[in-house]
Amino acid sequence: MRMTELSERSGVPIPTIRYYLREGLLPSGRFTSPNQATYDDSHVRRLTLIRAMVEVGEMPIAAVGRLFRHLETKDGDEFATLGLVQYSLVRELSPSDQSDANARVQDLLDRLGWRVRDDNPARSVLATTIETLERLGYDDVLGLLDRYAAAAHELAEAEVDLMLAREGLDNRAGAVVVTGILGDAMLGALRRLAQEDATARKLRPAKTARTKSSPRRKPAK
Amino acid sequence: MRMTELSERSGVPIPTIRYYLREGLLPSGRFTSPNQATYDDSHVRRLTLIRAMVEVGEMPIAAVGRLFRHLETKDGDEFATLGLVQYSLVRELSPSDQSDANARVQDLLDRLGWRVRDDNPARSVLATTIETLERLGYDDVLGLLDRYAAAAHELAEAEVDLMLAREGLDNRAGAVVVTGILGDAMLGALRRLAQEDATARKLRPAKTARTKSSPRRKPAK
Repeated sequence: MRMTELSERSGVPIPTIRYYLREGLLPSGRFTSPNQATYDDSHVRRLTLIRAMVEVGEMPIAAVGRLFRHLETKDGDEFATLGLVQYSLVRELSPSDQSDANARVQDLLDRLGWRVRDDNPARSVLATTIETLERLGYDDVLGLLDRYAAAAHELAEAEVDLMLAREGLDNRAGAVVVTGILGDAMLGALRRLAQEDATARKLRPAKTARTKSSPRRKPAK
Repeated sequence: MRMTELSERSGVPIPTIRYYLREGLLPSGRFTSPNQATYDDSHVRRLTLIRAMVEVGEMPIAAVGRLFRHLETKDGDEFATLGLVQYSLVRELSPSDQSDANARVQDLLDRLGWRVRDDNPARSVLATTIETLERLGYDDVLGLLDRYAAAAHELAEAEVDLMLAREGLDNRAGAVVVTGILGDAMLGALRRLAQEDATARKLRPAKTARTKSSPRRKPAK
C-alpha cells in the first residue's frame, strides 16, 4: 500500500508517519522508485503499537526507540529480552533516599516468594511509592500492600499465559508492552469506576444512582 | 517556621515553593513583616501532597491547581466534591470514535451492577483502552476484563473504607488523590514484579532466581 493508505488504515497522519520513519521507529517501506515506497500490514501493526505506547502509555519517543532497538538486537535469551522490554515501560522517578524502602521491597518479595532480578526498575517505583505514602502520613494505605500484591499476582499469571501463547519473540514482546501499558490504563480506569461505586454505596446508600438504569439504556458519550 | 525550614522539612527547593505560592497551589504563610512569612505543618503536608501528585502522579501543575480549587469551593455535597477530585486525576486521552466501546463499558457496568455517573472520565479511558486493544489485535487481553474488574472492585472496597475512616472533606479528598495516584503506581509496580516472577517460573523453571535466595524461601504457587 501507499503512504496515503497506510495513514488511513493506521489513523496516523502522514507527517507523523514520516517522523517515525526518520526516528527509526518504523522500518522503511519497499522502494518502487526513488520517491515512492510501498508498505504492508506489518507497518500498520507497528504504527498502532507506537500509537498505543505514545498516546495511551504516554511513553516518550526516545523510550519507544530504545524499546524497538532492544527488540532488534535480541542479543540475550528470550527471558532477558522480554525483561528489557518490560523495564523500558517503567517511568523514571526522581531519585530519593530509598535504602530503607528498598529493603522493605526485598522483604516483601521474599515473603511472597517472587523471583525478581535486582535491576528490575519496578523495585524502585514501589520503594518510592512506599516512601511517599509514609511521608504523607498514609501508612494505612501501605497496609493494603499485601492485597495489592495478591491482585497483581493473580492478574500476572493470566497475562503471562496470554503472552506465552503467542508465537515468536516480537509478538511476545508486543504482548508485554500491551499488557503493561494498556493493562495499567484498564486497571486504573476500573479502579476509579469501582471506587465511585463503593463511595456511592457507602456515602449515600439510600439514593439511586444518577445514571438512568433503564434496561436498554443508550451508551454515554 | 521560616521558608528555609519549610524547604528542608518538605524536601522541596525554595524556588519551587515560591513557584507554588505564585500559582496558588500553596496558601500564603502568615506575614510577620512585609518580607517575612511563617509557615506551619499544614504547608508541609500540602507540599508533600503536591510532590506526590506532580512527581509520582506526573500531574500537570494546572491540573493540581484545578483540583485544589475544587477542594476550596466545596459548592456541592461531599460525594460530588470527592467525585470532582477523583475525576481531575484521570488523564486526558486523545478522542477517538468510541461509541461502540462506550456501549460496551456501559454493558460491563450494568453487568457488574456498578453505580457510576455518566460524566466519570474513567469511562472514556476504559473505552479507549478497549478500542485500542481490539485495533491492535489483542482481543485475548480483553478477555481478562472481568478479572481486572473483580480485582479493582475488591481493592476499591478497602480503599474507600480507608478514605471514609478519615475525618473531614479535605482529608478524605487527600485520600482520594493518594489512593488514586500512588495506588496506580504501587499496583503497576507490583504487576511488573509479578509478571517477571511468573515469566521466570514458566519460561525457565529450572534456573534459580538471580536474587539472593534465602534458604527458607518458598516457591510461589
